[in-house]
Amino acid sequence: MRQVTLVEVGPRDGLQNESRELSIDIRHELIRKLAAAGLKDIEAGAFVSPKWVPQMAGSAELLSRLDTGGSIRYPVLVPNLKGLEAAMAAGARDIAVFGAASETFSRKNINCGIEESLERFAPVIREALGAGIRVRGYVSCVAACPYEGDIAPGTVAEVADKLFQLGCHQISLGDTIGTGTPGRILAMLDAVSRMVPVAHLAGHYHDTYGMAIANIRASLDAGLRTFDASVAGLGGCPYARGASGNVATEDVAWMLEREGFVTGVDLPALLDAAGFVSQALGREPASKVARAFGAPAAAS
Amino acid sequence: MRQVTLVEVGPRDGLQNESRELSIDIRHELIRKLAAAGLKDIEAGAFVSPKWVPQMAGSAELLSRLDTGGSIRYPVLVPNLKGLEAAMAAGARDIAVFGAASETFSRKNINCGIEESLERFAPVIREALGAGIRVRGYVSCVAACPYEGDIAPGTVAEVADKLFQLGCHQISLGDTIGTGTPGRILAMLDAVSRMVPVAHLAGHYHDTYGMAIANIRASLDAGLRTFDASVAGLGGCPYARGASGNVATEDVAWMLEREGFVTGVDLPALLDAAGFVSQALGREPASKVARAFGAPAAAS
Repeated sequence: MRQVTLVEVGPRDGLQNESRELSIDIRHELIRKLAAAGLKDIEAGAFVSPKWVPQMAGSAELLSRLDTGGSIRYPVLVPNLKGLEAAMAAGARDIAVFGAASETFSRKNINCGIEESLERFAPVIREALGAGIRVRGYVSCVAACPYEGDIAPGTVAEVADKLFQLGCHQISLGDTIGTGTPGRILAMLDAVSRMVPVAHLAGHYHDTYGMAIANIRASLDAGLRTFDASVAGLGGCPYARGASGNVATEDVAWMLEREGFVTGVDLPALLDAAGFVSQALGREPASKVARAFGAPAAAS
Repeated sequence: MRQVTLVEVGPRDGLQNESRELSIDIRHELIRKLAAAGLKDIEAGAFVSPKWVPQMAGSAELLSRLDTGGSIRYPVLVPNLKGLEAAMAAGARDIAVFGAASETFSRKNINCGIEESLERFAPVIREALGAGIRVRGYVSCVAACPYEGDIAPGTVAEVADKLFQLGCHQISLGDTIGTGTPGRILAMLDAVSRMVPVAHLAGHYHDTYGMAIANIRASLDAGLRTFDASVAGLGGCPYARGASGNVATEDVAWMLEREGFVTGVDLPALLDAAGFVSQALGREPASKVARAFGAPAAAS
């Protein structure tokens, strides 16, 4: 079991949290480069109102340009039935729904509590599955919540289990504020894996406090083999300006290869994608590996 | 065994690799702030030629201002007998010598091979011990060398053992280019700890590829309880401009506390020291934790 799947979330989860909006053409080119780097799961967009999330405007056109029937999966975020219909019309074969393990975070983020959010997701998931579409379930705040503080592992397990029972093929466990450390992450995974088989779990760890790589390494020991990551560390952290959010795909890929795992990712091609999108955003890649490889050698 | 000792190397190993030179007054104030933050081992300077290392000019005067007879240890780097004499005259009670596990790195860094460097250190260590001075031994390139690539764990163990036999009370194992990942670090520690008891080992891991925290977490499982770190991530990486070098003390301290270890470090006071020296250097702290805590909250 040395095979690890990386789910690239940069073009959606990442760009959605960048202040500069990128055109459909640039996002398409980014996705093309990520596919060329060997990534097989690339989150491509979100079917949400462009009034609220202008960074994801044109997701339908973007998705329709991609070969959703091929070997690469292009999940898109879908909040409700209206979004599902639009996603299906654009050719979606994979969607994702976004839940939380924190009541307060859920209310602030999607304007309803955990229970109500699951009730809303139920018909979306049912319709999608009926149309042969795979559904991924996100659970945010799996270690702590920006409003409530630490979240009990049992609460995370309950929400994950409900999404799994509703038919999600995979549950992505998000340490949204990045305060999880290996001990806490392992306690959470222990609770969750009693309800949902570990093969159906993905780790989605933010690097805000520099813990994501250590958390991924610990999760590998717990049997996880799927991790979300964002090229160039796209996304930042909405709770602390200038701080890191999503762990960078190139950091994760580099560590996994050095640790003897197989990702199928071509690092130079991935660094090319990181450089491309960073230039489009007018900033440096938020990735240690990109800086270590990309920086010119010092004079002496 | 939840007690962990952090050896603060910022004022020496860190500042030595910063291009801007700081005055004795500012370095003294930095050390004062680090002591106020609860650090008990603070590397204070280097007795090397200011022609080659201008950042360490005035180390004798700086050391003489510190209370080297108290509960806080202030080791200084000493390359030879001349340096030892100067350090002793300035009141040193702790010195450090700097070796390598790579033949090529040793030749490029200190102009002699591994064997010859150990022969040079022998009288320095002997004299120091005779005067009641503790000696710390650095071994660089414990995972890989910028010139030779991967270094065999057995080679690291041999050099560490020789320094230990010469009388070094502690061996600091340096992943100089930061390419070590937990599996490789654990293999290295396994080899070294067969020769030198783990209680006499310290992990000195660079964060160039974002692996330092994961390597420290793995080393804790292997029994290590001493780690080197540099406030604000001072030092950078001499092999890739703009890349990270020393792991930031605040990142390590934050992780250790969250994992239930006791460091005696006061994080707000440490962040104050990080902010102070970063301002003196005219840059942002190279630390995820400092950015997560220090950044103003986002507008929404």
